[in-house]
Amino acid sequence: MLEFAVQTARAAGAVVLPHFRGELEIQNKLQGVEFDPVTQADKAAEVVIRERISARYPSHGVFGEEFGLVQGDGLTWVVDPIDGTKSFMAGMLHWGVLIALFDGVEPILGVMHQPFTGEIWAGAGDSAWYEHAGRRVALRTRQGVGLGDAVLATTSPRFLRDASERSRFAALERQVRLSRYGGDCYLYASLAMGLVDLGVDGTLSAYDIQPLIPIIRGAGGVVTLWDGGDPSLGGSVLAAGCPALHRQALEILGGP
Amino acid sequence: MLEFAVQTARAAGAVVLPHFRGELEIQNKLQGVEFDPVTQADKAAEVVIRERISARYPSHGVFGEEFGLVQGDGLTWVVDPIDGTKSFMAGMLHWGVLIALFDGVEPILGVMHQPFTGEIWAGAGDSAWYEHAGRRVALRTRQGVGLGDAVLATTSPRFLRDASERSRFAALERQVRLSRYGGDCYLYASLAMGLVDLGVDGTLSAYDIQPLIPIIRGAGGVVTLWDGGDPSLGGSVLAAGCPALHRQALEILGGP
Repeated sequence: MLEFAVQTARAAGAVVLPHFRGELEIQNKLQGVEFDPVTQADKAAEVVIRERISARYPSHGVFGEEFGLVQGDGLTWVVDPIDGTKSFMAGMLHWGVLIALFDGVEPILGVMHQPFTGEIWAGAGDSAWYEHAGRRVALRTRQGVGLGDAVLATTSPRFLRDASERSRFAALERQVRLSRYGGDCYLYASLAMGLVDLGVDGTLSAYDIQPLIPIIRGAGGVVTLWDGGDPSLGGSVLAAGCPALHRQALEILGGP
Repeated sequence: MLEFAVQTARAAGAVVLPHFRGELEIQNKLQGVEFDPVTQADKAAEVVIRERISARYPSHGVFGEEFGLVQGDGLTWVVDPIDGTKSFMAGMLHWGVLIALFDGVEPILGVMHQPFTGEIWAGAGDSAWYEHAGRRVALRTRQGVGLGDAVLATTSPRFLRDASERSRFAALERQVRLSRYGGDCYLYASLAMGLVDLGVDGTLSAYDIQPLIPIIRGAGGVVTLWDGGDPSLGGSVLAAGCPALHRQALEILGGP
């Protein structure tokens, strides 16, 4: 099923890529509330993903960003056809196609694909791998890094929910070696590659984080909510390259 | 000379790329002040650039991030071997090799190269082009966009100099359609591609911005300091896709 997910991500990427840096008809999902671009590419890609799933696994459910939930027999594919739509719209590179398979408790496999670069990240169980230019290598997070040596990444502190979250994030940011902004799914991919040590984001949806969880865990990392809880249904997420660093960061983000 | 700059950027990229996502020996240039990574890749690439320049244009000067200024006969190559070193270190994609030629007043040509994707952006006079996968196309900024429809990008609001700059930036951010963080040189490349309308960064150095100026201007954009002044020697920079939008943003960032 992991190989099916990889091929499906590639098929969706092939639909998305011609729209990248091309003319896009943009809609606003939540007009007047917040800018949340939906592109034709996003919808067309989710249609392709749903078609492939219903042809191959007709009894499975699907939950996608664009077209919501179709109930299944207990296994549900969780899909974000373009994670990082703002980056996509701006012609930048930190976006990807995300696909997970959720067993009702946790995602049992996850795939990320960047069609412009042709990169794939995939994880299931206790392993994860990266493929680029025909070469597949095992993913390993960086181990043994203390807070003072850590590289922290967040998509944007503006996505944090409230002043309390922002102040706890700022406290964490003051203790790390390096903090950088931007990334969406790509920052968690970098964490799985052992180049980012802490990934922190507020208010992620299930489809934003589920596909990344098996990649992070399969590479040796830890991912939870800020209170240590299960991240599978989304929320404010903390990913770390190793358990000790995760505990240190959790102490700060978890708050009193 | 533009073609020489393109070939030199490619040569530097070939030196840099094997270090990307590999093992790097990191040094701190400003220990205890702020984290500013310098990699072996950075230095090795600047050496290659300097060798090529002194072989081909022995009378020209060179000013590079790593090895400072060598005076010449009035024309100076201005070089940042890896712009976006933090992104580079984090294994992410928004970084590039930057080369400009400065006549003492302004950069008369500029090149940006992303070696992982193989992309090139180049500009001189009133034209600019982009090359990827063997295809070269003219660059054109997006014209006729008002502030309320603009896509704004900044590398990080943390790079702004003081509370006054941050509050003026926040005022601009409130008026645009979409604001995104992260990017370094890549956000200005996206502006030249017509996908970002406003690029704003604090405290850039001459070598960060000079190579991008001919690309932005050649594509139809405008780039100045926040007070409308010449950006060639660095400072807090405002780039816009078209003159009217630049004036609107300048009114807010220029302050009282």
